[in-house]
Amino acid sequence: MRTFRLTLEYDGADFEGWQFQPGDHRTVQGTLERAIARVTLERARATGSGRTDSGVHAEGQVASVRLETAMEPERLRRALNGVLPPDLVVLALERAPDAFDARRHATGKLYRYAIWNDPTRHPLRRARSLFLARRLDLEALRRAARDLVGSHDFASFQGAGSDVKTTVRTLRRLEVTGEAGGELDLWFEGSGFLRHMVRNLVGTLIDVASARRDPEGMPELLAARDRTLAGKTAPAHALSLVSVSYPPGAGEAPESDPSAAGGDPGEAAESD
Amino acid sequence: MRTFRLTLEYDGADFEGWQFQPGDHRTVQGTLERAIARVTLERARATGSGRTDSGVHAEGQVASVRLETAMEPERLRRALNGVLPPDLVVLALERAPDAFDARRHATGKLYRYAIWNDPTRHPLRRARSLFLARRLDLEALRRAARDLVGSHDFASFQGAGSDVKTTVRTLRRLEVTGEAGGELDLWFEGSGFLRHMVRNLVGTLIDVASARRDPEGMPELLAARDRTLAGKTAPAHALSLVSVSYPPGAGEAPESDPSAAGGDPGEAAESD
Repeated sequence: MRTFRLTLEYDGADFEGWQFQPGDHRTVQGTLERAIARVTLERARATGSGRTDSGVHAEGQVASVRLETAMEPERLRRALNGVLPPDLVVLALERAPDAFDARRHATGKLYRYAIWNDPTRHPLRRARSLFLARRLDLEALRRAARDLVGSHDFASFQGAGSDVKTTVRTLRRLEVTGEAGGELDLWFEGSGFLRHMVRNLVGTLIDVASARRDPEGMPELLAARDRTLAGKTAPAHALSLVSVSYPPGAGEAPESDPSAAGGDPGEAAESD
Repeated sequence: MRTFRLTLEYDGADFEGWQFQPGDHRTVQGTLERAIARVTLERARATGSGRTDSGVHAEGQVASVRLETAMEPERLRRALNGVLPPDLVVLALERAPDAFDARRHATGKLYRYAIWNDPTRHPLRRARSLFLARRLDLEALRRAARDLVGSHDFASFQGAGSDVKTTVRTLRRLEVTGEAGGELDLWFEGSGFLRHMVRNLVGTLIDVASARRDPEGMPELLAARDRTLAGKTAPAHALSLVSVSYPPGAGEAPESDPSAAGGDPGEAAESD
């Protein structure tokens, strides 16, 4: 068995999220596993760095999978892309340390939420950004964002239906690029996110930037640990998982092709 | 009766082109005219600067329409956008000189053809650019483009089913921006284009840039006046009508609001 690390791009519009669901559900995981089975004749579980929701896109989702195949990684990648549908592609595929697990070893994720802030809606932007006609107050948004960055209990921003042990997460970065009255991006980088956390933060920040919520109110909102006090869940279609980071050696592509190297790739994972 | 000039953006994916067709066909013109009827209760013909094909997008298509309505232009624009579907919007709506005709008075059109030149296809780019895996030779493409710019008989690049008086057109600009192995745009600016002309030029230029056709062969191809000798019609989904130009006074938005001005706006059209 060898472990592979896959970097995936997908258009989330026609997927019911990442996670495999039995029955007639089109998911990214299920589609990927079916392609792997077609190419390698192996039934394998692809582990994603995390579950993206229905409608959420990815430019750099990472998955790990263990396979018997002796196929050379680039040949395997091309074969998979040959059978995957147009809305899912394997951007990169590398041999990884045996113990590499895309979910457990992920140390950070970067998400981008795209907003088109203009009095006129734009048909050519609608598929992947949220149209907001009212001019946003980015100063207020940045003020609120400052109080959200850091390690906090984000229970107020957790969607229903989760069973996580702790709702404490570290938000390392929350930035706005672009400008009010145009194309805006909200960037969220952290060690991990609760269910719907990014979209609930976006909904709350839009309230702040639209003068419907006090920019100074974030500490109180965090302390309340009450989902009903935060903003609405922003729509999924404007959210993209941009990249996932891993400690060096635990899944990053090594300098040389690891499938060609003789050493035990499992050891690299231990070095972290 | 007053004449209005409308600037339109649309996502061409779900339209069967610009031109109204009787029956169950969803066209841009038909959809716009239905919205105008809903808002003003007038049955009016919207004249486009030209017909975009099924699947072709527009960031700045221009249409003219004559209406009895006394509605102020910005109010009319908002009312139309309130009833138009998500894939069509009126970006701007101004009072125009009485005689303004978006088709007859157009002096130039700018089209952009988007190519994604990468060994790996990209799901998030697929809706509006053409994926070409083979690295393109842009030097060869530019060499061929130089011989296409100017006034020529473009009969070799005309799609079937046209009944134009002359196949001579002036291509004022044919440029490539971006770089091989990445995101490329082909820009076509001219006084007017034959049916499928831009897409037939693109198909031919892709042949040249893929070493399947002699970059020096354009003069001969133009002289042949034979559609079967040029390249394939490139797919519609990667083409956008970026803007349409008009002589000053014949439909360009005047400095001041023309609907507020007292003079006969018809005179402005005569001045060209």
